[in-house]
Amino acid sequence: MKKILTWIKPTWAWMHLWNYLWMFKPFIENSKGKKSYLMIADYHSLTSVHSKGELELNKRRMLVELFSLLPEDMDITLFEQSKVTHINNITWMLSSVTPYSLMLRAHAFKDSQAKNSDINMALFNYPVLMTSDIITYDIDLVPVWKDQKQHLEFARDIADNFNKTYETDLFKLPEPYISEEVGLIPWIDWRKMSKSYNNHLPIFDDEKVLKKRIMKIVTWDEALEDVKNPDNCNVFALIKFFASEEKQEEIKQKYLAGGYWYGHAKLELLDILVKYFGEAREKYKRYEDDFSEIEKKLKKWNSIVKWMATKKYNEMMRVVGL
Amino acid sequence: MKKILTWIKPTWAWMHLWNYLWMFKPFIENSKGKKSYLMIADYHSLTSVHSKGELELNKRRMLVELFSLLPEDMDITLFEQSKVTHINNITWMLSSVTPYSLMLRAHAFKDSQAKNSDINMALFNYPVLMTSDIITYDIDLVPVWKDQKQHLEFARDIADNFNKTYETDLFKLPEPYISEEVGLIPWIDWRKMSKSYNNHLPIFDDEKVLKKRIMKIVTWDEALEDVKNPDNCNVFALIKFFASEEKQEEIKQKYLAGGYWYGHAKLELLDILVKYFGEAREKYKRYEDDFSEIEKKLKKWNSIVKWMATKKYNEMMRVVGL
Repeated sequence: MKKILTWIKPTWAWMHLWNYLWMFKPFIENSKGKKSYLMIADYHSLTSVHSKGELELNKRRMLVELFSLLPEDMDITLFEQSKVTHINNITWMLSSVTPYSLMLRAHAFKDSQAKNSDINMALFNYPVLMTSDIITYDIDLVPVWKDQKQHLEFARDIADNFNKTYETDLFKLPEPYISEEVGLIPWIDWRKMSKSYNNHLPIFDDEKVLKKRIMKIVTWDEALEDVKNPDNCNVFALIKFFASEEKQEEIKQKYLAGGYWYGHAKLELLDILVKYFGEAREKYKRYEDDFSEIEKKLKKWNSIVKWMATKKYNEMMRVVGL
Repeated sequence: MKKILTWIKPTWAWMHLWNYLWMFKPFIENSKGKKSYLMIADYHSLTSVHSKGELELNKRRMLVELFSLLPEDMDITLFEQSKVTHINNITWMLSSVTPYSLMLRAHAFKDSQAKNSDINMALFNYPVLMTSDIITYDIDLVPVWKDQKQHLEFARDIADNFNKTYETDLFKLPEPYISEEVGLIPWIDWRKMSKSYNNHLPIFDDEKVLKKRIMKIVTWDEALEDVKNPDNCNVFALIKFFASEEKQEEIKQKYLAGGYWYGHAKLELLDILVKYFGEAREKYKRYEDDFSEIEKKLKKWNSIVKWMATKKYNEMMRVVGL
């Protein structure tokens, strides 16, 4: 069975519709029929977060969110990067076959240069650690979203460099896995979604908060009696992601009949979302109160992955002569 | 008692007079009255050595050489860098508070730029790992030889960055320790000492080899009966490093009396060196035949240092929130 790896940095938490549709749902889809690994990239979060409180809070909340959304019967290995003892030792050895010039091509570095700003060395080294994250576990497939395409290329280059330098086949070269296009997801307003604009739609917040946000979704300025175009409406665009085909058709007819207010559609969306995420929202409350079940599962998964990395590390040390 | 750290990269072995006088003897002097750590910087050697055979051979021979030279009663902790499980994890966390721009000032990087050549990422990261090597063990003093001055400065900067970023005093800022000047050490010829020129004087090679090399030391073209100037002679310059004051005076008089050939002085040098390193050369043979005593001691020291690093790593993880 092919191994696929997805990772998330706990620099954000507060799962919202955008993350769900762009990251989580494709991740579930991509995992089907494969051995799926989901990594909490907490070492990577140090490239930008330097606050113990923020990191701990984000990571805990992210774990609660993920565990709430994961299907019970899913065959998955969800693990914490920082619990993999040898991951940075492996990175050191890979660094020795990674050209400096390759890292100058990294997006994060180029962005910093474009902004004329200094970066920290963790951010500069980030692609090498990411390579370890991929090739340590003999991952076959890496989903290729926009930001991750380069990571896959670097991982292939560096793995290949190591294999050639030491005349070995220790590392498998991962392949890209093309996810289906998600399509455009509208926000509350026309701006780019951002925590600071507070214009996202949360999944796990209180129903009141969710309702308030939904009510703020920007719509056209039309009269109640006007016939409305569902295909040109942010509310309906969201409904389409979560409602059954029948439900979609039913609401569509209301748009086209006139006498239907955008406020009505918004209430329908609220109802649809609360039902769609009903089970996850229940679980969320349970996990927030009692983190121990998550800790127990994590511990088991961490130890599996740690073992795999230790094995690869030992083989690598033998190959380089240490 | 103050802690002092010295390190050696096993990219060379074959201890010769230059290394002995410039590195080993000052190391013994510097260690007096302090808690002394000597690190075999084998992870660092990957910045330039990519051959299992070469690395293993160099490291083993270097260990045999060092153990042969170490005074039996010396209180020392000699350890292998690569056996310190968490050293690269610590480095990752330090990287996150190390500016990229700081590394651009590193000598190794600047040399590569001057030569317009690409370097590998291990070489670029070398100063950050070196910082971990120093500050992980709460080292007080770092001997400041030419190449190591910058490492001390970087270690202080990075330790200070971490302490300030996380409002902690986890890391001690190391101080420079100024070694006494060794003075000029002559080679066999006028060229810079180099393995490829084969113009060094070995310590542990067979007496025949040593004799052959000594006989090649470049001297002046004078007649047997000429009065000779000991202060303008490579052979006498070497004798001064290893002979007792009485012996030095005795040979000096022969130079000044005339009728004394440089070949005579060379044979005296051979005799002096063989006696000076007599015990070490005996031990060398023993350790070459039986490496197990070295392995046993190393294992004990490695585990002490590993424990210290694990303790620091755990404190660090708590501070950053992982």
